[in-house]
Amino acid sequence: MTGKEARERAAAMLAEAGIALTPAERDGIEIADFGLGNLDEIGLQIVVYVNTDRVCAKELVLFPRQTCPEHRHPPVGDDPGKEETFRCRTGVVHLHIEGEDEIVLRPGEQWTIPPDTLHWFQAGDEGAVVSEFSTRSRDETDVFTDPRIAR
Amino acid sequence: MTGKEARERAAAMLAEAGIALTPAERDGIEIADFGLGNLDEIGLQIVVYVNTDRVCAKELVLFPRQTCPEHRHPPVGDDPGKEETFRCRTGVVHLHIEGEDEIVLRPGEQWTIPPDTLHWFQAGDEGAVVSEFSTRSRDETDVFTDPRIAR
Repeated sequence: MTGKEARERAAAMLAEAGIALTPAERDGIEIADFGLGNLDEIGLQIVVYVNTDRVCAKELVLFPRQTCPEHRHPPVGDDPGKEETFRCRTGVVHLHIEGEDEIVLRPGEQWTIPPDTLHWFQAGDEGAVVSEFSTRSRDETDVFTDPRIAR
Repeated sequence: MTGKEARERAAAMLAEAGIALTPAERDGIEIADFGLGNLDEIGLQIVVYVNTDRVCAKELVLFPRQTCPEHRHPPVGDDPGKEETFRCRTGVVHLHIEGEDEIVLRPGEQWTIPPDTLHWFQAGDEGAVVSEFSTRSRDETDVFTDPRIAR
C-alpha cells in the first residue's frame, strides 16, 4: 500500500464514521509506518486537529489488524509526560497497557493512559477510528520498545 | 421543553451525527440553562468525555438558534485559564470572540479560544454538534457577562 492509497483509505473510513474534514486535513493525513516499511501490519493514520502547548486532539485511523507498536511518553522538562485518552468511534480496538489486562474498546468506550506508561494497541478485523484527547503531543520524544523504531 | 425532552433531543442529534455514547453517557447528558429557565433560547447540552487536571473533551449540542451566553475562563491559581478549541461536527455555529469578527464554523471547521477571553456562540437554524478540546474545565469559576447567570 502506498502512502497515497493509505491516505485515501483512511479518508474513506473517517467519512464512513461521519467525521467531516476540511480538504486540507484530508490531504494532510499523516501516515506513520514507524520506519519499518510494513504499514499494513504496523502503522497508524493520523489527523491532528490541534496541538498547542497545553492540549492536543487527533483522530487515529487503524486499518484491519493494524498495530501501533509499544511506546511510552516520558517526562520532558516541566511536563510529566503526555496523558492521553483514547475513545473508540467505530470498529474495535484492543489496548494493552503496562500493568493492566487487555482492554477492548468498542464505539463509545474510552480509556485514559497515564504519562510515561508503556502501551500498544491493535484494531480488530474491521479496523477502527479512535479519537485521542491529550496534553501536548511531542512525537520526537516518544520512547518505543522496538529499537528499530525512530519517529 | 423539560430536561428529559432536551436530553432525548440531544441524544438523537448525537446519534444522527454518528457519535456513539454509552447508555450511562446518554442518561447523563447535562442540560445547562444557566439558571435562566429559557432553555430553548439560552442553553447548552453537554456530554463530558473526560476532565482530568490537564485535559478535557466534551461534545456540545445546540438546538436550532440556541445560544451559549457570553463568558470567559479566568486564571485559577497556577492555571492561566481554560484554553478551548471548538470543532463543528454537524450544523453551523456562529462564534463571537472578543476582538474578532464573527466566525462561522461549518462541519470540519474549528477555532481555538485563548484563556480569559470573552466569547459566546449560537447555532444556526439546524442546530449544531460541536466537539470541545480543552484544558481542565472548571465551570464554577467561569465569569458570565449577564449578572443573572450562576453555574
